[in-house]
Amino acid sequence: MLALLGATASWAQAHSAQEEANRQAVLAFYEKGLNQKDADAALKYVGDRYVQHNPNAADGPEGFRQFIAFLRDKAPASHSEIKKSFVDGDFVILHVHSVRTPGTRGNAIVDIFRLEHGKIVEHWDTVQPIPETSANANSMF
Amino acid sequence: MLALLGATASWAQAHSAQEEANRQAVLAFYEKGLNQKDADAALKYVGDRYVQHNPNAADGPEGFRQFIAFLRDKAPASHSEIKKSFVDGDFVILHVHSVRTPGTRGNAIVDIFRLEHGKIVEHWDTVQPIPETSANANSMF
Repeated sequence: MLALLGATASWAQAHSAQEEANRQAVLAFYEKGLNQKDADAALKYVGDRYVQHNPNAADGPEGFRQFIAFLRDKAPASHSEIKKSFVDGDFVILHVHSVRTPGTRGNAIVDIFRLEHGKIVEHWDTVQPIPETSANANSMF
Repeated sequence: MLALLGATASWAQAHSAQEEANRQAVLAFYEKGLNQKDADAALKYVGDRYVQHNPNAADGPEGFRQFIAFLRDKAPASHSEIKKSFVDGDFVILHVHSVRTPGTRGNAIVDIFRLEHGKIVEHWDTVQPIPETSANANSMF
């Protein structure tokens, strides 16, 4: 068993099938919801609850529906580009460049999703407007 | 080999020794730097460069020293509490509640660190002030 553990060490950066399925679920949820603005399609990736920690969004799937309706109405051309995705067990983390109005600098966002049985059940995020100037030349991504 | 892959699937949430070492390096860097405000001690966990994406910080180890000096001078009682940590290959991600002045709500932060050979070489973050009120009862953490 120890030999087996040793043999698997180099695979650690490859993820389990469940972790990859979790990543794909979150990527699809994000694309269907935030970009295509199709809340019903996105909510197929959500489980029996959606615990919301974003302070601007109401709890639950209904809060997500309201947010997508807001985007359709007020920011129909908004777009979120996923710059990086990470997986760790039940969690998927996205580093995102989100632009509400094309041509503006937009926000840098990190989203954290928790999944159960391959479905999204909880969400946290932190959102920072990208400033006009930076103390370094590396961009926020 | 397929059987072996199947057998390892349930271990996936355990991390490789390198991933755990990466996590411990980042946790120590954060505690020594952000909380103890000892830049020299923190920089022992940094590699031959420190590529900075936080737009308020200058690039490189010197930018980090300047930030810690700022904290010592302007926010000596500031404290960062790590709420969650994630690891994925060369990356460590922290979800942090950072309070500059005790008694204030502070910021919700996600930090992303990239490591090479167990040393931190790159950093991104997104920082959001915690608002006074929230549309849900779940807090930002």
